[in-house]
Amino acid sequence: MDTQTLVLYAIPAAGVLALLYAFFTASWISRQSTGTEKMATIAGHIADGAIAFLKREYKVLIIFVVSVAILLGWANMGREGTSPMIAVSFVVGAFCSALAGFFGMKVATKANVRTTHAARTGLAEALNIAFSGGLVMGLSVVGLGIIGLSSLFIIYSRMFTDMGEVINLISGFSLGASSIALFARVGGGIYTKAADVGADLAGKVYEGIPEDDPRNPATIADNVGDNVGDVAGMGADLFESYVGSIIGTMVLGAAFIPMFNEIGFTNPIAAVMLPLVLAAVGILVSIGGSFLVKVKEGGNPQNGLNMGEFGASIIMAVLSYFLITSFLPATWTAEGFVYTSVNVFYAVIIGLAAGVMIGLITEYYCSTDKAPVIGIARQSITGAATTIIAGLGVGMMSTALPVLVLAAAIVASHYLAGLYGIAIAALGMLSVTGIQLAVDAYGPISDNAGGIAEMAGLPPEVRERTDKLDAVGNTTAAIGKGFAIGSAALTALALFAAFRQQAHIESLDISQPIIMAGLLIGAMLPFVFSAMAMGAVGRAAGDMINEVGRQFREIPGLREGTAPAEFAHCVDISTKAAIREMILPGMLGVLVPVVVGFISKDMLGGVLAGVTSSGVLMAIFQSNAGGAWDNAKKRIEGNIEFDGVVYGKGSDTHKAAVVGDTVGDPLKDTSGPSINILMKLIAVVALVIAPLL
Amino acid sequence: MDTQTLVLYAIPAAGVLALLYAFFTASWISRQSTGTEKMATIAGHIADGAIAFLKREYKVLIIFVVSVAILLGWANMGREGTSPMIAVSFVVGAFCSALAGFFGMKVATKANVRTTHAARTGLAEALNIAFSGGLVMGLSVVGLGIIGLSSLFIIYSRMFTDMGEVINLISGFSLGASSIALFARVGGGIYTKAADVGADLAGKVYEGIPEDDPRNPATIADNVGDNVGDVAGMGADLFESYVGSIIGTMVLGAAFIPMFNEIGFTNPIAAVMLPLVLAAVGILVSIGGSFLVKVKEGGNPQNGLNMGEFGASIIMAVLSYFLITSFLPATWTAEGFVYTSVNVFYAVIIGLAAGVMIGLITEYYCSTDKAPVIGIARQSITGAATTIIAGLGVGMMSTALPVLVLAAAIVASHYLAGLYGIAIAALGMLSVTGIQLAVDAYGPISDNAGGIAEMAGLPPEVRERTDKLDAVGNTTAAIGKGFAIGSAALTALALFAAFRQQAHIESLDISQPIIMAGLLIGAMLPFVFSAMAMGAVGRAAGDMINEVGRQFREIPGLREGTAPAEFAHCVDISTKAAIREMILPGMLGVLVPVVVGFISKDMLGGVLAGVTSSGVLMAIFQSNAGGAWDNAKKRIEGNIEFDGVVYGKGSDTHKAAVVGDTVGDPLKDTSGPSINILMKLIAVVALVIAPLL
Repeated sequence: MDTQTLVLYAIPAAGVLALLYAFFTASWISRQSTGTEKMATIAGHIADGAIAFLKREYKVLIIFVVSVAILLGWANMGREGTSPMIAVSFVVGAFCSALAGFFGMKVATKANVRTTHAARTGLAEALNIAFSGGLVMGLSVVGLGIIGLSSLFIIYSRMFTDMGEVINLISGFSLGASSIALFARVGGGIYTKAADVGADLAGKVYEGIPEDDPRNPATIADNVGDNVGDVAGMGADLFESYVGSIIGTMVLGAAFIPMFNEIGFTNPIAAVMLPLVLAAVGILVSIGGSFLVKVKEGGNPQNGLNMGEFGASIIMAVLSYFLITSFLPATWTAEGFVYTSVNVFYAVIIGLAAGVMIGLITEYYCSTDKAPVIGIARQSITGAATTIIAGLGVGMMSTALPVLVLAAAIVASHYLAGLYGIAIAALGMLSVTGIQLAVDAYGPISDNAGGIAEMAGLPPEVRERTDKLDAVGNTTAAIGKGFAIGSAALTALALFAAFRQQAHIESLDISQPIIMAGLLIGAMLPFVFSAMAMGAVGRAAGDMINEVGRQFREIPGLREGTAPAEFAHCVDISTKAAIREMILPGMLGVLVPVVVGFISKDMLGGVLAGVTSSGVLMAIFQSNAGGAWDNAKKRIEGNIEFDGVVYGKGSDTHKAAVVGDTVGDPLKDTSGPSINILMKLIAVVALVIAPLL
Repeated sequence: MDTQTLVLYAIPAAGVLALLYAFFTASWISRQSTGTEKMATIAGHIADGAIAFLKREYKVLIIFVVSVAILLGWANMGREGTSPMIAVSFVVGAFCSALAGFFGMKVATKANVRTTHAARTGLAEALNIAFSGGLVMGLSVVGLGIIGLSSLFIIYSRMFTDMGEVINLISGFSLGASSIALFARVGGGIYTKAADVGADLAGKVYEGIPEDDPRNPATIADNVGDNVGDVAGMGADLFESYVGSIIGTMVLGAAFIPMFNEIGFTNPIAAVMLPLVLAAVGILVSIGGSFLVKVKEGGNPQNGLNMGEFGASIIMAVLSYFLITSFLPATWTAEGFVYTSVNVFYAVIIGLAAGVMIGLITEYYCSTDKAPVIGIARQSITGAATTIIAGLGVGMMSTALPVLVLAAAIVASHYLAGLYGIAIAALGMLSVTGIQLAVDAYGPISDNAGGIAEMAGLPPEVRERTDKLDAVGNTTAAIGKGFAIGSAALTALALFAAFRQQAHIESLDISQPIIMAGLLIGAMLPFVFSAMAMGAVGRAAGDMINEVGRQFREIPGLREGTAPAEFAHCVDISTKAAIREMILPGMLGVLVPVVVGFISKDMLGGVLAGVTSSGVLMAIFQSNAGGAWDNAKKRIEGNIEFDGVVYGKGSDTHKAAVVGDTVGDPLKDTSGPSINILMKLIAVVALVIAPLL
């Protein structure tokens, strides 16, 4: 067995290692105590609701997956340069994505109550459990992603001789991952916000209903929502990003095969394998980094998380240098452009730096201590209208610097290593997704732990500890967001370039009317998509409000706290609404590129450019406006002084800030993050149908 | 004198006719009675405030105009294909735009009180005065536009032999018009909304201050704002659109000169002159159409306005057929594309049809009787947060159909007559700007008339009549909006194509990273611009709130209505704030294309595509969200029933709707309409600097 083959087989092995480590971590979590009987009961309700939602969601998605698979297989039958096997890739991609979501959520719904129990005695163990729960999610995502991708690559490489065809077939895997991700993100986002907004507003509509109170029948649904939206939805999202950036790089790397052969390089597919190798090493680094996450009793958990994530990123950056320079030829030429392996490494570093910068900018605009959020808090003094205007302004203004950073990263990484440089810069941001996702998923687990503490009537110091856990990790989460947005833009761009290659389009002259028409249509999609998502949250929240009102009217003793609420009804409403409402926006992403593509592939090129540009803007605007409103509310809850007057919880200023927070909820947790997926999904669909156009 | 020369001189003559007719109409308005002494005093305050603002605004703009003129003259000195004379065009364009704004506003501030007086006795005469006031504005705009453009064209045609150079020099006129328009729209928009939002919110912050009450010291500033924002700002805006669409068509028409010479056509510059001829005939048709605007006592004024605008449009469409087919050769070929004069005519019709359709869609989303607005009203039951979410959703969703219509119009008009077809489709929408603008400006005049009736303590039936005047013309105004958005997009596209020609860019391949980076930056501009505009309104409104509070604290008897408020201070605050805050967003539009252009002209191409696509979306979203919130509030004020419960003025539902209306104010009256100008200004700047790159 030569070195190339050895390396090739080592890649899925790293994935298997990730799954094994995740399995042992999950078993360890399961062995921890669930605390009092009441805690266990509540946690059981949450876990049941979450799994029930996932099962129903997957039932609907199976119909979608099977239909698309049949269509894909049929459309690619008997064609040059493609094969019905693409349908297999698609199904495997969809299955891996769904499985990663299932594993992650299963463990998250175990970790929450165990975190609560650990928080009864101290901070260190609570952090450990919450983070471990997140880690299982992170490692499931990267493990299944790398196993699926590399296995298909190995199998197809033996079945087909043309590497272009192999890569084309693998892009089906990305399509499966992206479409499941879009449905999961949108469905999960609608679920969680319908419950959240509905529970909050029920108190406004019907007198005497307590908001944020265990008696409110929507609270269990709200906690289920955290798991299906922020854990399973985010997992599917990052699975999609991870896979998309790897495949984007593989597609563009395939263009180097003739040049590598020409210079007699031993491994002609080195540029295709490199993203898989980087991802595999990233898994090992993520596992290593997880050992750095520790907090001493009384210490700041933030330091532990930072150590883990930044430690892993730095180690990965150093290793990348050695991997890239030893894996690729020192220098080669393609289409008159001189590539060097060192420049490819610099492109990775540019990606990492851009991600960190976008993250820090995001943090600035959403941080409770900084001018933008304080400005929104101040505007809340004059009521809800000025709160909203200020937040919209902050969100829109916050697009400026990230876009400039992105534009610079695009130009610089392209200058260094062409389109391959752009693709690998995106991969640079995502190589340690394993630990990043662990930090991200740790947030909703801590949040859930706090909810359980409240509902189970535990002493206030438990809630204080879980709040402390929840509050930290903001910086790391912001940087994760930066990576998500940055990598989405770069990956969409790489996929766009790959589409142009595969569709044999010479040039997409944007001043041509047909392409300009496509550009306008593409730019419109994130707006319409957001409108659909917001409308869905509004309708579902309305149903929830009515149900909460009904229960308070019809169940005697509920108001007094002597009779239990019918939690299951609320869970059911959120589940049904989310499933029903996710279909239309999800289909938008799949159907539009197909319809436009068969009208004109040039117009489809315009659509890709439009959806990427307007998508990046809308995603940043919505996430940051929502984040800033949320923190302005929190800032006021911690009492804030303006011109000698102190404003705090319960004041009119706080009420205005709550309006901002509620408006921001669907923006930052439903439509905003879904747009990142939408733009990549449209690009992947275009890439997959390119040979048919 | 040959026919060509005769036609050429007839064009400015039509402009002179428009100004003469405007002058006589203005004199007739001046001769009408101003009613009681109190009415005259109030109207005097409004007129003084408006003129004072305009004077200060123009003082600042003179510095800008002189600086840019010097730079333009210097940069174009001693270069091939251009000349420092472009600075003269620029100054003339800026001057004509400013003059049109001045005339229009001067007359509007006379017409308002006279409309109030006429409304004391009946509806017919009031409509007549209000519409005549608007007509003076409309005719000043088109008269000065056509005189300026055609005079420069005649003069330069004699000075320079190369038609390409002549057209390039004339584009300076458009630059002058666009830059003044952006400052006027933004400045006027900030002024009017600072006063409006400030006056409304003062009551919220300081107890016992009446909102919407003559005692509120910000009311005069609010009425001044209607004039500087909705009359002068809109006038500059439409002057810019009108001039931009004519010049865009002229630039593209110049490409046909060699072909016309080749086929031995008598008038080789026919395609360059055609837009001027259509505009000149449009002036005559507008004047004719104004005679159709009549209402019988007790009749519906809507019918009168519709008769005028639709009558003029239909007559113009019919005349266009004869003008175009007799003016252009029946058929000619350029770059392998066969053009026919009949197809050019069809392109005009497509432009008109697209404008009307966008207008009707706009009306659907903003109409008090239709589902979107009723939906927002219903969501107001659950509070301000759901009102805002619903309105954002309606605004975003409302982008879908107009964008599809636009995309179809772009593809169809290009299919019929190439880029020239797109440009002339835009012109088709704007050929009867004279009467359209009259209908648009009629709105704020009636609004002001109502304000004066209230402040002068006239009997309620007067206010009822002015409200009736104000309420009609919604359809016509919506169609005007459709024309504004549609023509802005098409004109920006035509200017974009013209830029590509002038900058000698072969192809702008959007999948190239440098262009993609430009696309992202361009798409970001409308977001940042909107954030600046919203921030400016917020800050200025804050100043206003403080001043109103100070007066109520410090002026004894103000609260009781026995002492007069210090109106002038509020006028001063709005004026200063508007002037101060308009600079930065205004400079954004001028500087970004220059900076980007000197980095890379390809990147500038990307910026143009980005700002056009995201600008169209943001403009539609913001205008329609604002319009829908406004009408949802109005709908509730007229009492609305949901599920057997009636919600009306003063209810919590109404309060929630008021929040929506206030949020919508800066969106629909400051940032939204300014974006239409922003995207054209950036394109014109690019066009003007193209020979220097």
